[in-house]
Amino acid sequence: MRVDICEVGPRDGLQNEPEVLDPTVRAELVTRLASTGVPRIEVASFVSARRVPQMADPEKVVALAEAPSPVTRAALVLNERGYERLAATDVPEVHAAFCVSETFNERNQGCPVADSVEATKRIIRRAHDDGRRVTVTLAASFGCPFEGEVDPGEVLAYAGEIREADEIVFADTIGVGVPRQVHRLLRGAADLDRPLGLHLHNTRNTGYANAYAALESEVSTLDASVAGIGGCPFAPDATGDIATEDLVYLLDREGVESGVDIDAVISVAEWLRGVLGRDLPGRLHRAGVFPPAS
Amino acid sequence: MRVDICEVGPRDGLQNEPEVLDPTVRAELVTRLASTGVPRIEVASFVSARRVPQMADPEKVVALAEAPSPVTRAALVLNERGYERLAATDVPEVHAAFCVSETFNERNQGCPVADSVEATKRIIRRAHDDGRRVTVTLAASFGCPFEGEVDPGEVLAYAGEIREADEIVFADTIGVGVPRQVHRLLRGAADLDRPLGLHLHNTRNTGYANAYAALESEVSTLDASVAGIGGCPFAPDATGDIATEDLVYLLDREGVESGVDIDAVISVAEWLRGVLGRDLPGRLHRAGVFPPAS
Repeated sequence: MRVDICEVGPRDGLQNEPEVLDPTVRAELVTRLASTGVPRIEVASFVSARRVPQMADPEKVVALAEAPSPVTRAALVLNERGYERLAATDVPEVHAAFCVSETFNERNQGCPVADSVEATKRIIRRAHDDGRRVTVTLAASFGCPFEGEVDPGEVLAYAGEIREADEIVFADTIGVGVPRQVHRLLRGAADLDRPLGLHLHNTRNTGYANAYAALESEVSTLDASVAGIGGCPFAPDATGDIATEDLVYLLDREGVESGVDIDAVISVAEWLRGVLGRDLPGRLHRAGVFPPAS
Repeated sequence: MRVDICEVGPRDGLQNEPEVLDPTVRAELVTRLASTGVPRIEVASFVSARRVPQMADPEKVVALAEAPSPVTRAALVLNERGYERLAATDVPEVHAAFCVSETFNERNQGCPVADSVEATKRIIRRAHDDGRRVTVTLAASFGCPFEGEVDPGEVLAYAGEIREADEIVFADTIGVGVPRQVHRLLRGAADLDRPLGLHLHNTRNTGYANAYAALESEVSTLDASVAGIGGCPFAPDATGDIATEDLVYLLDREGVESGVDIDAVISVAEWLRGVLGRDLPGRLHRAGVFPPAS
């Protein structure tokens, strides 16, 4: 079995860090990650620098980062304006996203979900016309901070609406999901005949259990961020995405191939800990690999 | 489905905390835990106070703690001298333990594994003669800090040797295990026809994935410590046992019954955070239950 890890530290990770890093440092993070064997990296986000100062100047990050083939660079866009900025770069993969709950989407995207779905469809068409691959992430698929429980049937209906995407990712944006939700969504979307991914947070210590459950339901892609960065800036002790190196540890010892060199990711995590100047949530860069190298 | 949680915070948790708490405070922790609905609590350890000062005066803890029926109180013993001290109290359940690797057992118990197995058999017989229930924990069943990989066949052979115990627990003492090891041990020991348990640490973020895998292999008991205390005192940022409240969150949302009131455990975790004066590894007492109570 093989799982593709999409490294989202430079985007979802840094976007939620309190510290705003210079584009040169963010580009260096991408460059370092590109040598770990990770097949895909979300390098930047084409969003408003006023709303998300951590993601300012994505064009600079893209221009400075060295992530040669076979690494695929991707970037997030939330609307067509964002897509147009991305399209002016050589980033070959588009990550579009919307929230499946009305309140959350209104706050994040400023419109009803149906409008975001239509915008996403237009982005898919334009990207395909331009020869780009598109992943669509359905945020808050496991629960909404404003509305609470989310109906998996509705989530799957939205997934069906954007089935022209090259990949569909269900995101546990606020880290509330459990394995049975993983199985319900992945098995429910299997008939869409698209590669399926999960974006998992470890906010309530269920992130790695969900990753393991995803293996049981034949997931194609798992998002992860080096050192587990991405805790919400408004909750200082919240953990972020599942940590890439911790996920690789789980995969390695389960016998699942990822192509990622755990020691290389741990080195990046240690470097990033120095850059951010604080303890980071990932465990492997502190506890060490088992069995230790002899 | 139902899983019994054995709360080990007062024992494995506090034993590995740098701070030594007074027996009155340890007894208060037991008393508070006894009102959460948790069916069993490891209240103390009858070991050398010189070697483990955190566990000094177990008789005082037992005398002061209020944990009336239906809560079952248990205590750890590592040899017959320890059992004799326990037998002088009214603690009805004995938790005996040895390590399955020679180097680790030599360091922890000062003798070859075979000698510990024989001592454990004698403890089982004496406890049964005295009308006490005995759980035997096989430490380092998922890996040894000195010898590295542990042969699951050997672990299962040791389990067979102490099958007179009322319950057998496989411990991931150093937090290196992954789900396929969980399945291998639980399914491999099923023919012993004994209730099986797991003792899991979250050192490498696999603890909750292992707990979830254990549900798939029909585990009877999962150890957990309130707030996830029990990080090794020599590794300040190591996490300890899986946290009781985080485990209950996973079980609740998976539809697995435990009888434990998550809000009550979170209250104990918050109290303990105040007592220990530092952030503790559990997530739920910080992130909150989902969906939030309306």
